[in-house]
Amino acid sequence: MYSYDTYIKVRYKETDQMGIVHHSNYYPWFEEGRTDFLASLGRSYGQMEKSGLLLPLLESHCVYKKPAYYEDKLIIRTRLEDIRGVRITFAYQVLKLLDNDLIAEGYTRHAFVNKEMKPINAKKVDSELYELLIHCLE
Amino acid sequence: MYSYDTYIKVRYKETDQMGIVHHSNYYPWFEEGRTDFLASLGRSYGQMEKSGLLLPLLESHCVYKKPAYYEDKLIIRTRLEDIRGVRITFAYQVLKLLDNDLIAEGYTRHAFVNKEMKPINAKKVDSELYELLIHCLE
Amino acid sequence: MYSYDTYIKVRYKETDQMGIVHHSNYYPWFEEGRTDFLASLGRSYGQMEKSGLLLPLLESHCVYKKPAYYEDKLIIRTRLEDIRGVRITFAYQVLKLLDNDLIAEGYTRHAFVNKEMKPINAKKVDSELYELLIHCLE
Amino acid sequence: MYSYDTYIKVRYKETDQMGIVHHSNYYPWFEEGRTDFLASLGRSYGQMEKSGLLLPLLESHCVYKKPAYYEDKLIIRTRLEDIRGVRITFAYQVLKLLDNDLIAEGYTRHAFVNKEMKPINAKKVDSELYELLIHCLE
Repeated sequence: MYSYDTYIKVRYKETDQMGIVHHSNYYPWFEEGRTDFLASLGRSYGQMEKSGLLLPLLESHCVYKKPAYYEDKLIIRTRLEDIRGVRITFAYQVLKLLDNDLIAEGYTRHAFVNKEMKPINAKKVDSELYELLIHCLE
Repeated sequence: MYSYDTYIKVRYKETDQMGIVHHSNYYPWFEEGRTDFLASLGRSYGQMEKSGLLLPLLESHCVYKKPAYYEDKLIIRTRLEDIRGVRITFAYQVLKLLDNDLIAEGYTRHAFVNKEMKPINAKKVDSELYELLIHCLE
Repeated sequence: MYSYDTYIKVRYKETDQMGIVHHSNYYPWFEEGRTDFLASLGRSYGQMEKSGLLLPLLESHCVYKKPAYYEDKLIIRTRLEDIRGVRITFAYQVLKLLDNDLIAEGYTRHAFVNKEMKPINAKKVDSELYELLIHCLE
Repeated sequence: MYSYDTYIKVRYKETDQMGIVHHSNYYPWFEEGRTDFLASLGRSYGQMEKSGLLLPLLESHCVYKKPAYYEDKLIIRTRLEDIRGVRITFAYQVLKLLDNDLIAEGYTRHAFVNKEMKPINAKKVDSELYELLIHCLE
């Protein structure tokens, strides 16, 4: 199954007083992975939004296996997990670059909506994108 | 079952270019709810950390029902869902103050650890806190 | 000179591994102060934006006097410092609620622009708001 | 004068409902530039902290020239501006990668302190680092 790797380095701002990365910061990392995953298919999420196809979240989930620290180099590994009708789910792994240790994993579930936040059928609105995504599931 | 209500107002910084609150911001709200929940039992989470009882996250989850907007007044309703051995789970609802509309709901699962991030039995380390928490489940 | 006090409590997410509030978080606090300052004049900044009057930043500045910590209760004291033509400057003080200790102070300078980000003369576009603001300088 | 370039891509989370990067996010970018600047001298700021040399902020300043947008590729150009006794100042430029357009510029002023947040003389505590930094000013 197709996946895409994004490389990040932990920012100081992303730590909290426990001395580790604050749990909420994994979600913007997932988002960066998602952006890069789509870009790797030749699609800019920014352009998708401008053309009227938005992907607000329905659900977010993360399981924290090991803490991440300031200056850690990490891989965000993104893949498509499911797409059906007006919903799409991405899955993510956060790995330590050094030794491939699994730091965290999670998923985000999204709706396809238009600028008025009304659900739309991605297959009809952008069939080319839909085909690209379906291929990622194989 | 005991629950505690925290009142917040959406900050501009918490919005994103979709014009709604960015999904990752619900987790710091849950955290604020958690802080207030413990404070309502007479316990400061800051003091707990200083005394060597930390609650890093094992898991976080949120389901988004309706978007929240800049300047919205919201209630974060926090309750204890489960406590056993070295693990504790809190559950949250985000409600619109105006009409009690359910905006989102989720949970966070935590480990009890010491400053060296080693799991500890809360019942043994701070039996008074443990009793307070058990009562919240009734 | 007119000023408005906003009360906040430091969130865990706002700390960093130095054990204090990360410096960048003072700016969203200033922003919350600004929102409340305008609200105290009977104006919602959200409504201003919808009506086509936006206040993007030209400059931000903060001087940190003493660290702030998790669970600290703080006052954000906001006042208008200057308004002329297409520019407006707000000034802020962050005080500890307990003893009125000065934690930080700063300012933000903004442009009045329309939705196309073109500078506009606030006095012409919304003379009522302009008058309200001028009174705050007295 | 020595400067170091950090390359970043704007994250969705960094935008706000104005459709541009929220002004507070430039400071974590400056911080990432600072981390990389020190790393380029062979020094990890994380290691400096562990060895008891911390750099909390005394002051932060940013001037916003042009808005930055989601997916923009940017350069954070960091240089040392001044170092004397217990204080150090870094200066930053944010440039658009595509055309070198100046997006923003700013500075951060820091104190050298130990883990107890007491000012320390960097020259005495870590003379090697001090020499490295002095060379960056030439």
